Amino acid sequence: MIQELAGIDVLEKASDLINKKDAKALALLLESLPSKELVHLISHLNQEHQSQLFTLLSPENAADLMDEIPDVQAIGIIEGLQVEDAAAILHEMESDEQTDLIMGLDAEDAEAILDQMGSEEADNIRNLLSYPADTAGGLMHTEFLCFQKDQTIGEITEKLRNKGSEYQNYQLKHIFVTDENQVLVGVLKMQDLLLGQSDNHLADIIIEEVFSIDHRAEMDEIIEIFQKHPFIGLPVVDEAQTLLGVILKIDIAEAQAERITQEHLESQGIIGGDELRTMPVTLRARRRLSWLSVNILLNILAASVIAYHQDVLSSVIAMAVFLPIISDMSGCSGNQAVAVSMRELSIGAVTPREVFRVLGQEISVGLINGVALGILIGLAAFIWKGNIYLGLVVGSALTINTLFAVSIGGTVPLILKGFDIDPALASGPILTTITDMLGFFLALTFAAMVLGHIQGL
Amino acid sequence: MIQELAGIDVLEKASDLINKKDAKALALLLESLPSKELVHLISHLNQEHQSQLFTLLSPENAADLMDEIPDVQAIGIIEGLQVEDAAAILHEMESDEQTDLIMGLDAEDAEAILDQMGSEEADNIRNLLSYPADTAGGLMHTEFLCFQKDQTIGEITEKLRNKGSEYQNYQLKHIFVTDENQVLVGVLKMQDLLLGQSDNHLADIIIEEVFSIDHRAEMDEIIEIFQKHPFIGLPVVDEAQTLLGVILKIDIAEAQAERITQEHLESQGIIGGDELRTMPVTLRARRRLSWLSVNILLNILAASVIAYHQDVLSSVIAMAVFLPIISDMSGCSGNQAVAVSMRELSIGAVTPREVFRVLGQEISVGLINGVALGILIGLAAFIWKGNIYLGLVVGSALTINTLFAVSIGGTVPLILKGFDIDPALASGPILTTITDMLGFFLALTFAAMVLGHIQGL
Repeated sequence: MIQELAGIDVLEKASDLINKKDAKALALLLESLPSKELVHLISHLNQEHQSQLFTLLSPENAADLMDEIPDVQAIGIIEGLQVEDAAAILHEMESDEQTDLIMGLDAEDAEAILDQMGSEEADNIRNLLSYPADTAGGLMHTEFLCFQKDQTIGEITEKLRNKGSEYQNYQLKHIFVTDENQVLVGVLKMQDLLLGQSDNHLADIIIEEVFSIDHRAEMDEIIEIFQKHPFIGLPVVDEAQTLLGVILKIDIAEAQAERITQEHLESQGIIGGDELRTMPVTLRARRRLSWLSVNILLNILAASVIAYHQDVLSSVIAMAVFLPIISDMSGCSGNQAVAVSMRELSIGAVTPREVFRVLGQEISVGLINGVALGILIGLAAFIWKGNIYLGLVVGSALTINTLFAVSIGGTVPLILKGFDIDPALASGPILTTITDMLGFFLALTFAAMVLGHIQGL
Repeated sequence: MIQELAGIDVLEKASDLINKKDAKALALLLESLPSKELVHLISHLNQEHQSQLFTLLSPENAADLMDEIPDVQAIGIIEGLQVEDAAAILHEMESDEQTDLIMGLDAEDAEAILDQMGSEEADNIRNLLSYPADTAGGLMHTEFLCFQKDQTIGEITEKLRNKGSEYQNYQLKHIFVTDENQVLVGVLKMQDLLLGQSDNHLADIIIEEVFSIDHRAEMDEIIEIFQKHPFIGLPVVDEAQTLLGVILKIDIAEAQAERITQEHLESQGIIGGDELRTMPVTLRARRRLSWLSVNILLNILAASVIAYHQDVLSSVIAMAVFLPIISDMSGCSGNQAVAVSMRELSIGAVTPREVFRVLGQEISVGLINGVALGILIGLAAFIWKGNIYLGLVVGSALTINTLFAVSIGGTVPLILKGFDIDPALASGPILTTITDMLGFFLALTFAAMVLGHIQGL
């Protein structure tokens, strides 16, 4: 069904409705589309149609739509909207999402939109913006149920009744309770409200031992806490235990998935955040080129080893066939070990200080696979030229180089992490440069050693 | 603090306590460790100590610990335990986790443990095992609040009061309401219980329009639903709307993060699930080798292009220096495009049928970056040998090959996905084989065309 709805038809229909300014039919169409289809549709509208679409929709519908598309795309769209429209749409969002989007805007656009919003809401966002992005303060949001400890169950039930629709979307089943200075003094489970008398004061029925997160806690620490405890959400407090906001486990899980994706993109040379193909070509080319240009310099460095041994090559031209194979295969073997180390680092199975243990564990794998690959390539060389020495040269070069590649691949992420350098970004280029240089050196040196037997091949 | 607790000391201390069989001190030590440290500790205990540890702990503590370590590790430990101990530990877990672990065991071990468990619990697990793993039935769990529609608020409040501790960990703030045949007829918000009279029947206050998931729904569909709607959990039903279980958004977010990680590992040549360095060396080596051996064959295929043009190489030995650079840089450029396509596929910004649109978008990036890299490498060649023809040959070969690599890298994942082949696994090897062959062919053919000007370099 999703397949049938997809593609050109929806795009045409949406463009048509935008041109006709048929807000109602548009809202219905968007409502009917699965989330992936929405991302797809928005990606394929031209900029003008994007702005018109978000202006036509009610701010609430527009906010829902913003929630479903990637932040980088939402920010681009907000930049193209009138300040009033942008402010109205942002007003409908949750505080953490508001903050994420405003943070992505130019300072000027951000200020204009904040000025347009209600001052209380704008102050709240400005406050959230003041926390570093990857800390509890930067990840929290400010929608939660909170009452004062001297209120009664009856008062709260009344309030919940009156403001039911507003509280509807609050995802915690706990109610936070503070004193008159907004200091967190306890929590209340929704079901405990059921069991108390209506004139009970909250102070008498709260659970006073509350687990809370300091606003400076970093992502890793927060992940840790949610892994270890069965909480679905936790309060965030400052030094004086003042209640600042809440963090939900689901937000952290989503932030974590995003981080894994970013690391993967980085390891493949896509740095500086998401690339969407709807971005300008020059930006996309420039961002990719920044990584490629470092790589080409490293490649030239590695190839200089070949240049240095050019005389061997000119005597045994067949070696030129095997150099790219040795380079590529060592890269593959090494990158497998990098991937395992990155995974083990992320789940905690290994720490940066265990370089030598990992080295020990990789040497054995490197040896087994090095010998296996060495035999394969050695046989191929022998069969091709009927010369056992050529087989021995390329086979032993690949065996030794695989051993080193696997050992380096396994340990480099740990070493980089130990020096606080992003292992996702740097491990690959460092690995391949070293293994290329070593591989070329080994192959050409071994060839030189038996030159009399392989000359002229 | 985490740093200070880490490493050898904890391991020694734990081993010591295990030898002394000091269950109480062990429980305290484990309680004090952050989750990453636990994974680390368990990874570093020998198998015998692992079994002793899990036997010493109370089943409840042992179950908590199992929850925090990777499934693949937990399964290994369960296999080493006495059947009675394993059953007691599993008894303390949530149904979805029980199912995941039992599914990972040998059929024989699984049956022995199930036979040891209470028959009701075992039947529940057997039932959950009957659903395919990546469907709603396989992902759901069976812990949720459910009452019958003819019960009253008073009866429920009473029940919640008596069974409070059991319900404590249920994460949904909704109560499901069924008829006498277990058919789902509505939901009740916890706070609505507050507002009703104690003799109200549930049938009168439930919300009858309930969003539910069919047990056959697949992972992607479920992700879709949670992306589009603000639910934190949803009921799973069969064809007759019988309530079978619940799926929480957080479970799906975690399953999704796991899937991204698996895809990343696959793209780096780690296939067949997680590799932990505590696994046997031969298993690790064999799994990695299965991917490497396909790759080396592809590499030999690509290198045959060089062998075919060996005569050109022997006239211009300098070309041998540039072949690995062209091969590696085209791989890098192409893999960037692969990464962007994988990302766009996963968020829905592109569908498999848009091969030609993506091709158009990549050609421009490929052209810009190809020209930039071509100029760099061409300059390097010119400076090295002082020969403009050599510079032109390698520069134009890299330019054209980058253009192709980027175009192929962008489109191959879409094409593979269109044919239902896992793009994470196959894109890289296919890409590098094609671009290697093309790159070698271009460089050596161009060299042959101007052979008179570059001979002897």
